[in-house]
Amino acid sequence: MSRPTGAWRHQPQPQRGLMWAASPAFRRQLVLLRSLLPCPSHSSVAAGFPSSTRCSSTFLRASHAMATSAGTVYEADAEAVVRRITPPLDRARHKGQAGKIAVIGGCREYTGAPYFAAISALKVGADLSHVFCTKDAATVIKSYSPELIVHPILEESYSVRDDEQASVSYNILTEVAKWMGRFDCIVVGPGLGRDSFLLDCVSNIIRHAREANIPTVVDGDGLFLVTNNLSLVAGNPLAILTPNVYEYKRLVQKVLNCDVDDETASDQLNTLCQKIGEVTIMRKGKADLISDGKTVTQVSIFGSPRRCGGQGDILSGSVAVFASWARHFILSSEQPIEKRVNPMTLGCIAGSLLLRKSASHAFEKNKRSTVTSDIIEFLGKSLEDICPAAY
Amino acid sequence: MSRPTGAWRHQPQPQRGLMWAASPAFRRQLVLLRSLLPCPSHSSVAAGFPSSTRCSSTFLRASHAMATSAGTVYEADAEAVVRRITPPLDRARHKGQAGKIAVIGGCREYTGAPYFAAISALKVGADLSHVFCTKDAATVIKSYSPELIVHPILEESYSVRDDEQASVSYNILTEVAKWMGRFDCIVVGPGLGRDSFLLDCVSNIIRHAREANIPTVVDGDGLFLVTNNLSLVAGNPLAILTPNVYEYKRLVQKVLNCDVDDETASDQLNTLCQKIGEVTIMRKGKADLISDGKTVTQVSIFGSPRRCGGQGDILSGSVAVFASWARHFILSSEQPIEKRVNPMTLGCIAGSLLLRKSASHAFEKNKRSTVTSDIIEFLGKSLEDICPAAY
Repeated sequence: MSRPTGAWRHQPQPQRGLMWAASPAFRRQLVLLRSLLPCPSHSSVAAGFPSSTRCSSTFLRASHAMATSAGTVYEADAEAVVRRITPPLDRARHKGQAGKIAVIGGCREYTGAPYFAAISALKVGADLSHVFCTKDAATVIKSYSPELIVHPILEESYSVRDDEQASVSYNILTEVAKWMGRFDCIVVGPGLGRDSFLLDCVSNIIRHAREANIPTVVDGDGLFLVTNNLSLVAGNPLAILTPNVYEYKRLVQKVLNCDVDDETASDQLNTLCQKIGEVTIMRKGKADLISDGKTVTQVSIFGSPRRCGGQGDILSGSVAVFASWARHFILSSEQPIEKRVNPMTLGCIAGSLLLRKSASHAFEKNKRSTVTSDIIEFLGKSLEDICPAAY
Repeated sequence: MSRPTGAWRHQPQPQRGLMWAASPAFRRQLVLLRSLLPCPSHSSVAAGFPSSTRCSSTFLRASHAMATSAGTVYEADAEAVVRRITPPLDRARHKGQAGKIAVIGGCREYTGAPYFAAISALKVGADLSHVFCTKDAATVIKSYSPELIVHPILEESYSVRDDEQASVSYNILTEVAKWMGRFDCIVVGPGLGRDSFLLDCVSNIIRHAREANIPTVVDGDGLFLVTNNLSLVAGNPLAILTPNVYEYKRLVQKVLNCDVDDETASDQLNTLCQKIGEVTIMRKGKADLISDGKTVTQVSIFGSPRRCGGQGDILSGSVAVFASWARHFILSSEQPIEKRVNPMTLGCIAGSLLLRKSASHAFEKNKRSTVTSDIIEFLGKSLEDICPAAY
């Protein structure tokens, strides 16, 4: 299935381009993009940071993450990343060109999580947002919002006879495959549940997305699935894992056969990515640590002290949009392949920043009673503050 | 199942601690906490109040409840209680650490009540709020809000054949038991209905919660169940009953074999608690009277003259959060066990105050058209007014 490569091109209009090229902001962004390349100094960062100062600039601030003995972690200039990868709004563009996202999740038990992820993708700026879920979940998710396209095609064990499982599984994959080529990114996991038959079907979907070169964000129960079957993402540079503290712990134990060590947080994260192979991991926490096995970047701007459930779903939906934008941006640049920045990393940085800004606004307004919907309400304003939609 | 004891510690940050230690508010709160201890003067209050003046202070105002000949009832400094037990917001905390609540209720007939209780828990500040209800109710409750996690697992008689009841009942308990250890408090009763099979299943859930040491707030149809089977809560210091005037009347008739006597309201309430054994009862009314069989406290600040249905559900959800916070607060204190304040009492005081403040705000805005959702809208502001979310 062909990719809509270059569906938009990140070429500023002439006047804007001139303005940008001359601006300090633009020069800083170039430094950022260079700094994220796998240059020798960055490799050394990944290994243990002897020559880290070579990469430092006014743009990247070397900081010691979580403990003085940890490897150097670069604080991303996340606002610059958002501005650089967000495509300009263009009157000549058509529906779908700003992004088509699909969320694979939603079962009898969970309906809020896939809704949060899918609606967040729209609120960040995607044109179309789909949800693939079970029949039970579909009616409810549809009722949350008429903005989403909801496909009631997944099945759980309780609704499928043993002798029907093979054919039902085949039909599910066939149905999803019809759509897959249209998506710029999929999110696997929000509200997926842990039904074994459903997870088997979703494993097929993950494999299919990979064959079709569709970036895949894995969160929530998707991480449970992937942790138990690492081959689903191993060696896939378009896979992003976004574990929270508990999910990260399970991942480290499974892959590295040890416990999480905050003293060597960045080294451990790099090693984890390398062991799984090529994936990008965003370890969520007080600061979000992002690695693709080469560089560790963090976003630590403060968001909100509220930890209501659902914020991870906003993040996965947002990262999906930003990662697809970053991918188009990088693919449309003229840099040689070996020098290109990892767009999955840029997507994580941008998603992390936007959630934190939005959570901060929502908390300012709602204080302790802040819930996830309150945060989603501020995605638009937060993005506008960073990257005004002038066109 | 292990409890997340000390998941947060109520230790103010140094600057805040200094401010608190020096403040009159802090000193008054210490007086409150001491005053709620089962000291001799309080025992005497429970018995008939000869030496009540020994416990009076600027903080507790001895008042004659409902009639001149009634036992002494202390007006709680409820604002101080809210401030003391509400955990500070802490940037380093993770999802779930501010509280995980479950509501057991919701059937073919009732869906609003469990929703009100569960969403109120979130708006007070819990991180996660679950509902366990029948399949019929689940779709509707889910559609009210994506913020809740709704488990469609309960069954009513009409949907279960007689010869299946034992296995269905077993499966329901197994499913709830999988989750029980994660909850900081459960609320049993909002919108439960009175189907005999469903109530039998819920009896098993109450017993299981007790074995797992999970605080349990019983309201609405849960009180109908418990009044007919007192052994479900007898001797459980983590049980809170929140009867309205009709439910209280039935309880008194069943346990004390007499009618409600407002002339000796506080004595009768204490006796009721003692007869059932160790439970905490909040008798809702013009003033909410709260007793654990030792001390009677009241919250009488005026709320709203509107008596729209659903306010009791807000109260039960709020009390669940505050009781779990108070329990963590007390467990993390260094007082010897015999001197510890009853956290269930503190939870009732705080919940009562917050509902009254919120109802007052909602009535001010909506007057005669005030409905329950209008009151929920003000939970956040009311809590913020009492206990600003500085962090």
